[in-house]
Parts: sequence; structure tokens; C-alpha cells
Amino acid sequence: MVLKVVTPTPSDIDIAQAAVPLPIKDIAAGLGLGEDDYDLHGQKMAKVKLSVLDKRQGGGNGKYIVVAGCTPTPLGEGKSTTTVGLCQALGAHLNKRVITCIRQPSQGPVFGIKGGAAGGGYSQVIPMEEFNLHMTGDIHAITAATNLLAAAIDVRCFHEATQSNDALFNRLCPANQDGSRRFAPIMRRRLEKLGIDKTDPNELTPEERAAFVRLDIDPATITWRRVLDTSDRFLRGITIGQGPQEKDMTRSTGFDIAVASEIMAILAVTTSLRDMRERLGRIVIGSSRAGQPVTADDIGVGGALTVLMKDAIQPTLMQTLEETPVLVHAGPFANIATGNSSIIADQIALKLAGPDGYVVTEAGFGADIGAEKFCNIKCRYSGLAPDCMVIVCTVRALKMHGGGPPVVAGKPLDHAYKTENVELVRAGCCNLAKHIANARSWGIPVVVAINRFATDTEGELEAVRQAALEAGADDAAVAQHHGLGGEGAVDLARAVMGACEKPAAFKFTYPLDISLKEKVESIARNIYGAGAVEFSPEAEASLEVYSRQGFGGLPVCMAKTQYSFSTDPTAKGAPSGFTFRVREVRVAAGAGWIIALCGDMMMIPGLPTRPAFYEIDIDPETGKILGLS
Amino acid sequence: MVLKVVTPTPSDIDIAQAAVPLPIKDIAAGLGLGEDDYDLHGQKMAKVKLSVLDKRQGGGNGKYIVVAGCTPTPLGEGKSTTTVGLCQALGAHLNKRVITCIRQPSQGPVFGIKGGAAGGGYSQVIPMEEFNLHMTGDIHAITAATNLLAAAIDVRCFHEATQSNDALFNRLCPANQDGSRRFAPIMRRRLEKLGIDKTDPNELTPEERAAFVRLDIDPATITWRRVLDTSDRFLRGITIGQGPQEKDMTRSTGFDIAVASEIMAILAVTTSLRDMRERLGRIVIGSSRAGQPVTADDIGVGGALTVLMKDAIQPTLMQTLEETPVLVHAGPFANIATGNSSIIADQIALKLAGPDGYVVTEAGFGADIGAEKFCNIKCRYSGLAPDCMVIVCTVRALKMHGGGPPVVAGKPLDHAYKTENVELVRAGCCNLAKHIANARSWGIPVVVAINRFATDTEGELEAVRQAALEAGADDAAVAQHHGLGGEGAVDLARAVMGACEKPAAFKFTYPLDISLKEKVESIARNIYGAGAVEFSPEAEASLEVYSRQGFGGLPVCMAKTQYSFSTDPTAKGAPSGFTFRVREVRVAAGAGWIIALCGDMMMIPGLPTRPAFYEIDIDPETGKILGLS
Repeated sequence: MVLKVVTPTPSDIDIAQAAVPLPIKDIAAGLGLGEDDYDLHGQKMAKVKLSVLDKRQGGGNGKYIVVAGCTPTPLGEGKSTTTVGLCQALGAHLNKRVITCIRQPSQGPVFGIKGGAAGGGYSQVIPMEEFNLHMTGDIHAITAATNLLAAAIDVRCFHEATQSNDALFNRLCPANQDGSRRFAPIMRRRLEKLGIDKTDPNELTPEERAAFVRLDIDPATITWRRVLDTSDRFLRGITIGQGPQEKDMTRSTGFDIAVASEIMAILAVTTSLRDMRERLGRIVIGSSRAGQPVTADDIGVGGALTVLMKDAIQPTLMQTLEETPVLVHAGPFANIATGNSSIIADQIALKLAGPDGYVVTEAGFGADIGAEKFCNIKCRYSGLAPDCMVIVCTVRALKMHGGGPPVVAGKPLDHAYKTENVELVRAGCCNLAKHIANARSWGIPVVVAINRFATDTEGELEAVRQAALEAGADDAAVAQHHGLGGEGAVDLARAVMGACEKPAAFKFTYPLDISLKEKVESIARNIYGAGAVEFSPEAEASLEVYSRQGFGGLPVCMAKTQYSFSTDPTAKGAPSGFTFRVREVRVAAGAGWIIALCGDMMMIPGLPTRPAFYEIDIDPETGKILGLS
Repeated sequence: MVLKVVTPTPSDIDIAQAAVPLPIKDIAAGLGLGEDDYDLHGQKMAKVKLSVLDKRQGGGNGKYIVVAGCTPTPLGEGKSTTTVGLCQALGAHLNKRVITCIRQPSQGPVFGIKGGAAGGGYSQVIPMEEFNLHMTGDIHAITAATNLLAAAIDVRCFHEATQSNDALFNRLCPANQDGSRRFAPIMRRRLEKLGIDKTDPNELTPEERAAFVRLDIDPATITWRRVLDTSDRFLRGITIGQGPQEKDMTRSTGFDIAVASEIMAILAVTTSLRDMRERLGRIVIGSSRAGQPVTADDIGVGGALTVLMKDAIQPTLMQTLEETPVLVHAGPFANIATGNSSIIADQIALKLAGPDGYVVTEAGFGADIGAEKFCNIKCRYSGLAPDCMVIVCTVRALKMHGGGPPVVAGKPLDHAYKTENVELVRAGCCNLAKHIANARSWGIPVVVAINRFATDTEGELEAVRQAALEAGADDAAVAQHHGLGGEGAVDLARAVMGACEKPAAFKFTYPLDISLKEKVESIARNIYGAGAVEFSPEAEASLEVYSRQGFGGLPVCMAKTQYSFSTDPTAKGAPSGFTFRVREVRVAAGAGWIIALCGDMMMIPGLPTRPAFYEIDIDPETGKILGLS
């Protein structure tokens, strides 16, 4: 299909609804997928089976391109749109085999502030309604699994508090009529952890029984929170257990948005069904009163969590406005998790693209966060190495970094952003330069994508291009895919193809065999530009506990603002020499990292006074959805 | 496929997993459905489009059979299994065109106490894993919609408490650069309710502005609760709003299980997309401080709720073990809602079955609840009338009603239930007789299905058959579909076919134009056998409020125990002359009924000490699910 581009650019939903998607089985056939390789979800989406990967184990990989961004304004600089537009250019205009790997958005913001996340303008994933709503149910599965574990934790504490060891034992391993008992297979995991190798429950000593039946969770240490995929601020802080039957066993806790769940984080980094089963079982929900980590498998629920996630592990095949294939999979928070789409989707895409093809995957937030985690966490777990990093920037963002007035969502842009000011742009390129230097520190060829807005002038664009090349970028290109579709990103696509041919020597920022503190310091100093790193006493204590519990060899996932290299969102440009403070440390043992929280993290957004849902409705005659943005 | 029956009967999951389902498109083709009539969800499920109904508007309906039960023991008497087995007999053994309409089960009990609900033995819906887990996402959509409305309520109260009328107005109808403003289309619904016909926001008087922007919800009247499809007892009673940003606007509330949501109730009784849109908008979440009902459309979210439910309105096509078609749709609570599968599924099934075919639909709980609501609520909203009612009973349940010892889930059955005792059975048939009399009061031919267990004797079975015929049943048949599949229910099927040929003169228990109290009294006296009906002062007050608010013309949905005709679950048999007490009254304005709560209702179950999830896992090599029951 050739895009019929209209000026001025219509609304995202008008463009998306005017498009007639190809039957997804045609998109699948174009990738060499047979009908046994996927499950249709309607005519326009399909879940791709993991067996596809097994079948192509011997085949070569495509070129692996990660799209990251400069430090953004609160309006966003078009990273998803560029990811999609670049693929439309590669696939529909340069006739390359290309697959886009992109995250599933949360439903919360769709009905709240942000609207959808399918790209924008003439660079979108369609159908945008499915993409922004339930899609193929992956986030709902994560919600179900997260909340099943939460329910299991509180009810276990309740039953342990109200039952003797013998009563617990009789319920956990009920006697048959002949007095025989059996362990459920999952119980053997806990027995193994306890160093008990008996297979007959009746042979446990009283001490072994006690250790087996009593997890003795310290309620004050429970870090597992419930989730909903709804922007519900009134669930941030709640007290549970106030029903008349719960015997005053109340507890303070709260809900996070579903995409902030560790189970979402696991989905994004898992590499197989077996790996996911093990990761889900390893999730640490808190500690026993004796200070031992308590896991999902200790509670007996790791298998059930995997069963709930059995379909979610399959990426969803969709398409762009120019009929190029897209794999949508996972959507982890970019602060407490990786903010990257899934390893499994990238792995499948790389095989389906093959040696002559391209896979473009997106890293959320600014490159200091999304790309750093892509390199140090995602690639570490996948064993993959990128061939090229694209850094998306805008004249608007660089002006802000150069000292322009604050950019605030929902308020009119200052005049400075609508008129030419080359000096302001040049001053802001320090931000871009630092991101380029970081990319080079990972040994990856880097291309700067200048996402052009209508108010940008040739002088401003050229200033960015020059600054990018001076900072060590392999290439830089102006792109207009929002208004033109893939045709607007052909220069960018050529630049990327060129960079992919350059030698890459991928390396991590830090090795795993240094201390957790040293890992945090390595990221803070080398990637953020910090001069000093401080840990709060609570953070120090947690680091000590987690190291003692055996988690010292994990990588570190930084939770910090995306609006600055530092922890101060107002520090624009490329600050350096600042003191970087770590407030709190948590473990995500299933996902496989230690989280260093630096500043306040919003774990569930709220709805504004006039949420996006005011415009959303359905035409009852045609079923057409109205007002999604 | 011919069932290969093994004795003793293997476990449900072993039978289900040994079966090879037909491709669902073949099942669809057998019903005359073309590829445009459904959306595949994998190879084994499809969502049937509502346009199917439009296309067949002129065609005749099949025979309409509702399966209800005698007052059950806590173990259940096999109503779902009989529903499925009867259809396997009609379709696979008597070569009739037949469609089963059945509810989607909640995920909560799947991982908790009850296990799955796909029928049992050789009478099951397959694949049972999909049926018992996410299926095609309908319950997840209900969860999302219910919680979006909940979030919108609390945040609206928050914003109204912290903003002036002008600030609210400026946010709800923001001014364009030229000062012009517009109402979102959904706002016109509130304006209409307020009697304001202005179309330009700037023309509102200050009083009109105030009325428009300020819903003034009285937090104490909010009845809308959040939901999860998880058995999480610690969410029964909670306090929300305790996060630091919520300014101490805390509130006591709680979560219900998703299937107890009014949105699930709406899904079960809606008749079209347009009807669903209107019902969702009409949902009353509480009252203003002035005593006016506040609706989802007042909050501006009725359209968004419909968008979230756009796919859930389509029934899911599956199949039985003997390749007969099944429509799975909705799964409303049987106490505070109808406990029946959806009107839309029944409507579609009746058209697809056609004049020579049969549709078998199930009514949850005992017939005093499920069948009563089927007749007085479901059929009232659908305009359909049943041709036959099947009442499922067991020797076990009738012995209990005859004075046998208590039957307790999880404890061994008393000897009385395993040895012949014809007198005990005969004594308990009073329960069956009352259910038969009720069916006759609705003017429906009635067939008793005696669900045979291995320990039942010929004498016991014959006693039930005799009692059924004496009580006025049109026929009675012993059925062994659990162990034999459809072959075991051929006699039952023949009896049902015969009854369907008898003249029916369907009538409701009560008309709509009497008072709400009179409706409750009519059900309590005529269907339950009560001698007197009492309303608590709170119930009296609510009835007065709801009548004043314009809800007096709605039917009544009784929320009472399924373990007795009375509100005392220990009163077995057919008690009469008792005083029936209504504790509390609520409105479900979207679903379209007044709920009369009689006794304590458990709105979200808990997990036992050893939940079903201990046995549930996945084989990471094959993806095979283990331990579901």
C-alpha cells in the first residue's frame, strides 16, 4: 500500500482508521511464517510461537539497531515514532527485510493523560485501537499473576498466624485414608532450599516440619505490591485486611501500575518458557523473621504464575501503516525495570530478519536510562550485541538543554521554541554529545536522528548535525516521518544501514564481579557524569542484606528521572561533577537485578481533572472507536 | 470423534488433554458461520460477531432449554456437567443441531478452592485450560472497566474538593486561543439531565456552571467497588487514599471478585452494542449530597467503559469433548446478579440452531435462584421464552434434604450417602417437588435429570423418578454422562425433546408495575415458600430512596443462599411458612434491577491453606499444563 499523505497531518486516530491493514497472515507469510507458527487473534494480530526460534536456531541474525533518545522534554521527542518511521523507510522504501520491536503501552495513560503510544502521524502501528487497549491480553495476564502472588502472601501470613505447625502440615500435606502423604512437586523446591532430601512427608522431624510449613514472613519486609493497569492514585497507599473476617491483621501497602510489576520486568528479559518458570519462582517477596529471602516458589505459586503467563510469553505480530511487520511485546517501566521491549521478541525478529535484514528495537526514556539498561542488562541476559544505536533528538529538546524556558505538558510552548535561535540549539547540543559519548563507551556505532518539527529552520538542523558529528556520531540525518511516513526517514535509514556496516566492539559499562556499590558508581560516574556517589543509610543496609542473601552478582537497574543525567530533573544539558544520591535499594530477584532508587518514583499515575476518557466513545452502529489519541 | 471411554473415569484434565479438539473453524462451519462471522483466537476458540444476529434476523429460533438444579449440597450436583452431557447426547448421538450456552468461570477459584468449571468427566468443554484461564479476555476487560470507573470516581471527588467551580470548568471545557470552548459529546448527557440545552459552554450561567462541573458525590453513598479476578480476602475491607499526595482524603471500601461486578451483570443481560453503551452509562455509583443518583455518564466515562468492553460483548465459540458447539459468555454472580450466561449468546445460538435445533443454557445455583432470575430477569430483558426446563438432582442431595447428615466440602461423605436408603431419598424429594412446582408456575414443561453416581441404587433412582412425575414433572431420566459422555444422557435428551413439543405458556412471577416490596414478597412467598417477609429499616429506607429516584419499575434480583429455599442455609428440604428477612437493598441501574440482600453475601472468596495452585505448573519442554482440575 502506498501512503497517501495529507497536509496538514490529520489526527493519529484518523490516519490509523483510514488505513486498511493487510490480513496479519499475509504479514506473517512475508516473514516466512507458516500457519503453525502463530495463533491468530482476529484478522489483524497474531501471537508468534516460541517454536519459531527453535526451528531457526542455525540461521543467522539480522542487524540489530536500538533506538534511544536524548534527554527529553515532558512532551517526548518522538522515539517511538522514529522507530516506526525508520522501519517504514527500510521496509517500504528501501525494500529491506525489517522488523520493528516495540513495547505494549499501559492502558492507564490511554484513558488518563498521555493517550496512546502507537507512534504518531504517518508512522504508526495499526490497528492503534488494539495496540492501545487489550491487545492480546499480556498485561492482563501480568495483572492476574502479580495479584495471585499478592493474595497468596497475605493469606499465608494469615494461616500461619492462626494455625499450629501440625495443622499447617496436615493441610499442606493431607493424609490419605491409609495415612500416607505426598509432597506436591513444587514443595520439593522449598525442601531443597532447606537442605531436606526426604520424599515422604511423614519422615520429617518436628524441626523439619516447622521449617517446611512456616515461612515466617516478616510483614514489615514485604515488598510485593498488587497492580492494576489503571491510573488510580487512590491506591498508592492503602491499608488491607480490614474486613471482619481478617481478624485485624491489617497491613499498609499499595498498588502499582501493572507495567511496573516485576512480572512485566521478567517478561521483558526472559529467554524461554523454562527460564520464565525459574525466574517467576525466584521472585523474592520479602524476608522471613530470620532474614532469609522468601520466594514465590516457597509459597508454592511459581508454577501457577507461569501458567497464567503461558500466552503472554508469545510476542504479538502487528504491522505499520506501510505494511512492515512489528512485534509488540512487554512494556516494563523504564525506571525500576529495563524500559525495553522483550528479549524474546528481539531474538525472534533477528532470526526472521536473517543476515540481510534489520531489527529495530526501542529503549525507553533518555539514552542514559533506556540505552544503558539495554546494554548492561538486556544484552547481558540475551547475549546479543547491537550493530547500531540511533539517538533521537529534537531542536526543541536541545533548545531546552541550551537554557530555554521550561517546557510543561498542557501549557503553550514558549516563543523561543517556535522561532529560529541557532545559538540556543548549539548550547544544548552538550546533552546530545554526552549521549553520543556514552554510546561510544559501549563500542556501538551511533547515528543521530533529528526528528524535524515544522518550526525548525535549516540553520538549526544543520547546527545539530554538525554538533553530532563533532561529538563522534558516525552519521546524523534529519527525519520527517511523522508528516511523510517512511519516505521522510529514508536518509536516516541509509545512515543506519551505513553505520551497521562499521565495526562494533560492544562492551558493558561494568563487570558483574565487582560490588553492587561499585556497579552503581560505575554507571553514575561514567554514564551520568557524577562526581561523587552517596548512599543513604537505608540503602547501605539493604545492599549489605542483599549481598549477604547472595544477590551481589546481579546487575544494577537505576531508578532515576529521565529529565536529567543527574537526579535533579531541572539540571538540563550535561551536568557533571554532581553528587549522585541513592535513596533506597530493592531486589528484583526474578527479573535479575538490584534496583537503586534515586529520587521519588511515581509507581502509579493519577487521572487529571479532564481525563482522555471524556472524548472516548464508540459508534454503536459501526463499532468504530472515537476519540482515542 | 467417537469418545473412547475408560473406567474408572480418569481425572478431568487427563480426559481433556487426551482429546484433540477440532479446529474451531470447522465447528463454526458446521453452524453455517463464514470466516467473516468470527475472529479466531488461536485454533481452538473464536469470538462470534454480533453481525451474525443481524444477518439471521428473519430466521426461526431453535428450542430453548434451561438447565437448573435442585437445592445443592456444597459439592455441587453436576449442573454444568449435565448441561454439557445433554448437548453431547443431542448432537453427537441423536444427530440434532445443538448449541450449549455456558458461563465463563472466574479465575479466582481455579487457583483457590473449587478448581475449574468446564463440566467434568466425559462431559466437558475443551480446551479446559483456555476455558478456565484467560479464555478470550472478557473478565479482564470487565476488571479494567470496573476499575477505570472506580478510579474516575475517587479522583473526581478529589478534584472537586480541591478546585473552585471556575477551575473545574476551565479544565473540563478548556478555552481555545480565541476563547471558544466546546462540550465533549458525553457532557451533553449530563447537561440534558440537568435540563440545560445550551451548546456553548461560555453561555452557561454561574449556577448552571456549578451544577455542570460539580457532581458533589457524597463519599458515604459510593457503592462502586473495585474488582480483581483473584481470591484475595485481604481486599474485602480496605482504606484507600493514604498516599502522601492524596491529602488525607481516605475512604473505606473494598474489592469484589470481578464476576461480581455490575459490568459483568450488564454483559449478561445486554442485547446489543447500543444497549450496552446505554447500560454502562446508566450505572449509578452513589448519590450526590442532594440525594440525586450519580452515573458513569455524569463522570464522563460511559463511552470509555464501552470501548473497553467492545470485544467482550462477543461470545466465545468452543466445543465439547464430542465436537458439539459451545458458546461461552459472561459469568455473573448468581446472588447479586443473574447467575445465567448471556442473552446475546442465547440469541445467537437460537438463530444458529434454527427451528429444528436446540439451545441448552445453564442457570446457576438452585432453581429457586438461577431459574427464577432466568425467568423474571433474563427472559424479561431478552423477550425469549424457554421451551423446557431441566432440573438436575442427585440421590446425594435428596438424601441430605431428607434429613441426612451435613455434607461438608473437603470432608469424607457420611456412610448414609454411600449405601442404599430409599426412605431417606423419598423424604428429600420434597425439595425437588417444590422446584418442579415453581417451574410449572412459570408455565414451562419440566424434565428431571437424575445425575447418577456409582453408589446410587436402582431403588433409589426409581424413587426419585416416581416422585418427580408425581410432583408434576413432564418426564424424568437417569443420566450417566460423567462416566459415559453423551451416550449416558441419551434418555435424558429424548425426554427433553419430548417436553419441548409440549405446549408452554410462559409467564413471569410478578409484573413490573407493582411496588418493589411487592415484587420481593411475590418471589419470597411464591417461589421460596415464605410465610412472611420483613425488611430491615435500612432496606425500607433504601427502597424509598430508589423508588423516589425512579427505579421502582425495575425487576428484583434476590441475593440469598443457594443452600436452602429460605435464608437459613441449614433449612433443607422444602421449608415453608418461614419469615423471610431482607437486610439491605441496592440498585444496579445499569444491569437493570434492584438487589435485595438477604443474609451475608461473600463478594470475594479467599484462598485456603493449601490452594489449588500448589499442583499447578507447566512442563517447560512441551508447554503442557499440569494440575488444573
